[in-house]
Amino acid sequence: MAIITLTTDFGEKDHFAGAVKGAIYSELPTAKIVDISHSIAPFHITEASYIIKNAYRSFPQGSIHIIGVDSELTPENKHIALKLDGHYFICANNGILSLIASEYVPEKIVEINIHDKVETNFPVLDVFVKVAGHLARGGTLEVIGKPIKEIKQLKEVEPYYNTEQNQIKGNVLYIDNYGNVVTNISKKLFDKIGKGRKFTMRARTATFDEIFHTYSDAINFETDQLNREDGKKLAIFNSGGYIELAIYKSNPSTVGSASTLFGLEWRDTITINFEN
Amino acid sequence: MAIITLTTDFGEKDHFAGAVKGAIYSELPTAKIVDISHSIAPFHITEASYIIKNAYRSFPQGSIHIIGVDSELTPENKHIALKLDGHYFICANNGILSLIASEYVPEKIVEINIHDKVETNFPVLDVFVKVAGHLARGGTLEVIGKPIKEIKQLKEVEPYYNTEQNQIKGNVLYIDNYGNVVTNISKKLFDKIGKGRKFTMRARTATFDEIFHTYSDAINFETDQLNREDGKKLAIFNSGGYIELAIYKSNPSTVGSASTLFGLEWRDTITINFEN
Amino acid sequence: MAIITLTTDFGEKDHFAGAVKGAIYSELPTAKIVDISHSIAPFHITEASYIIKNAYRSFPQGSIHIIGVDSELTPENKHIALKLDGHYFICANNGILSLIASEYVPEKIVEINIHDKVETNFPVLDVFVKVAGHLARGGTLEVIGKPIKEIKQLKEVEPYYNTEQNQIKGNVLYIDNYGNVVTNISKKLFDKIGKGRKFTMRARTATFDEIFHTYSDAINFETDQLNREDGKKLAIFNSGGYIELAIYKSNPSTVGSASTLFGLEWRDTITINFEN
Repeated sequence: MAIITLTTDFGEKDHFAGAVKGAIYSELPTAKIVDISHSIAPFHITEASYIIKNAYRSFPQGSIHIIGVDSELTPENKHIALKLDGHYFICANNGILSLIASEYVPEKIVEINIHDKVETNFPVLDVFVKVAGHLARGGTLEVIGKPIKEIKQLKEVEPYYNTEQNQIKGNVLYIDNYGNVVTNISKKLFDKIGKGRKFTMRARTATFDEIFHTYSDAINFETDQLNREDGKKLAIFNSGGYIELAIYKSNPSTVGSASTLFGLEWRDTITINFEN
Repeated sequence: MAIITLTTDFGEKDHFAGAVKGAIYSELPTAKIVDISHSIAPFHITEASYIIKNAYRSFPQGSIHIIGVDSELTPENKHIALKLDGHYFICANNGILSLIASEYVPEKIVEINIHDKVETNFPVLDVFVKVAGHLARGGTLEVIGKPIKEIKQLKEVEPYYNTEQNQIKGNVLYIDNYGNVVTNISKKLFDKIGKGRKFTMRARTATFDEIFHTYSDAINFETDQLNREDGKKLAIFNSGGYIELAIYKSNPSTVGSASTLFGLEWRDTITINFEN
Repeated sequence: MAIITLTTDFGEKDHFAGAVKGAIYSELPTAKIVDISHSIAPFHITEASYIIKNAYRSFPQGSIHIIGVDSELTPENKHIALKLDGHYFICANNGILSLIASEYVPEKIVEINIHDKVETNFPVLDVFVKVAGHLARGGTLEVIGKPIKEIKQLKEVEPYYNTEQNQIKGNVLYIDNYGNVVTNISKKLFDKIGKGRKFTMRARTATFDEIFHTYSDAINFETDQLNREDGKKLAIFNSGGYIELAIYKSNPSTVGSASTLFGLEWRDTITINFEN
């Protein structure tokens, strides 16, 4: 009983996701299909990279993850299938696995070559589902593609630190449903460079000198409810292990959110300076 | 084969819902996971309360309902699990079950105490899924928490009626996908107070003196199609048992809806005066 | 183990879809429920028609498709169940199957007559689920309705061609998640009328004289990446077999899309003139 997950930019409305699920059940009647997200911004590889990284780890080993973002086959965008950290991934070789592959070395990567002569403009349906079916039935990667050594890496997702090791410069990686701003600076890097030193983190006009472990750690529950700090700005290490800038209990569609209140968008800079 | 439902404010895009499903399958490979909604407005307890109330009843007895809205553990927001009307619910004790609990007395309530020492900012994944797994395997509530007597109730969701019993004052409880305005006045209360008397219902400038049982009951199908009353304002008892103000066949994104045309938002007042 | 799909205008937020899934599991504990779309624009029969047509074909034969759009029972909107192309459909007789039924003759159609005396304003839950349960258990259509000969057809979805057979006039059928504009002109009709002749296709100010088979066929990958033609306008035969006007790698929420850039909306005219 294979688990097959879907992460795409198909949106919630169109027939694409439904058609793909129908094709999976036609191929594998006992599959368990799980939607991770169909609301990635169109062609947004970084968003997809962040979402698949944070979702796949909760699934059982051997799960098969189909990623349908920027997946049309072109001379420079080949289809690949790989095994990494005990999971299978099927996607285009466009950098979409950068965030995962920066932590784990793939066990095996193949460039898919089962394509028919006929071209398709729906490769998730016509190619990825067949590969998933093959893997779910216990087939090997070698049968559906030729081994390659490496996958493409996005450069932009890596934060930078100086040689004196007293500054980290990162970027906004993702804005979540609550308008919270996820940076590409991991707790691991923060701890490695910071070594427990005091610091100032700047993102446009907002500054932070403390990073909490949960949202409510930032809140003083001794005060009475009327003066409770809903709307307080705070930084946390989020559940994905990244530094996140947040507004306590924000609702983006009413009072605003970290993204709107700090004026931060995808790719904007976050700087952390450590004291000497 | 347990059914586990999810009602959250995670949104359709982020990895949260996908990660939770992965964790459930890791815990319970044969679970049936059903999304009720991931589009509750962030931290909106009343919306969640309305949606879970109207969805849970259709599920088989013994289903397990996880509610992930405002679920971070704080000194005043404990995690609870309970059995009520033959169903299990796992959520924070923040009033989110008010609408259900106003009709049914819980058979048993426990305050969850399986939390690790390590804090989490993703309690649905780290705590609620474990509780659901325990219950799905036939475990008892007592094993995962200590019994408590009562759950928190939201006051605002209850309508008011005067001692002369000729007036009900209610509020807007929910605006649905069609822009229809659901009030917190139930058919049960309306019948009890109204006792079949004539009435006038006022919501800002809109008035109604009849409440239908279906949308099309308000429409005269004898007229020819050109003069058909699409766009007619009407009040019905909706499928959840509440009075709802509607526009016949409205589309909020084009011609507008009851909410926009009547200028009604969450918490606005609806008054019903009965004739003596 | 029946597959039951859902295509509705319930939206992603309300309890409707969740309640329907609960009712299906109550009726059929082993059902596989697949969401095709819950984001059809309210009461938009043409959108539903396009989406169900392009999704159903990927599902295994014998799948049961529930369509919950404009499904309230009225004197002129009866409930039907039918078998067509090896699949079952349950919906209102409002033209919603026009695009499918223009290609396939239904094997059998019945007007559902299992309705209780009590009226319902949630027919998908109260009627369609029961019919699906009956069919999934191997029941026949005759048991739940009386046979009828024909279903309602939408006229507007058919393109027009002149008697000289040198012009096709079609309309915008659907705008997809990428803002691409799907016309109601099929490759089949285009080939039949065009017979390989040169042509000019006009949609407002945009003109096209070539139709590609995939998006990237329109792109010259020999040029360097900086001058790559993201944002190029193009026409393709889409995976549904229709002519589609697109912008290469468009994102409607940032740079715009075919729909916004060409100024094309649902029902707007597309004209193809063939050379003599």
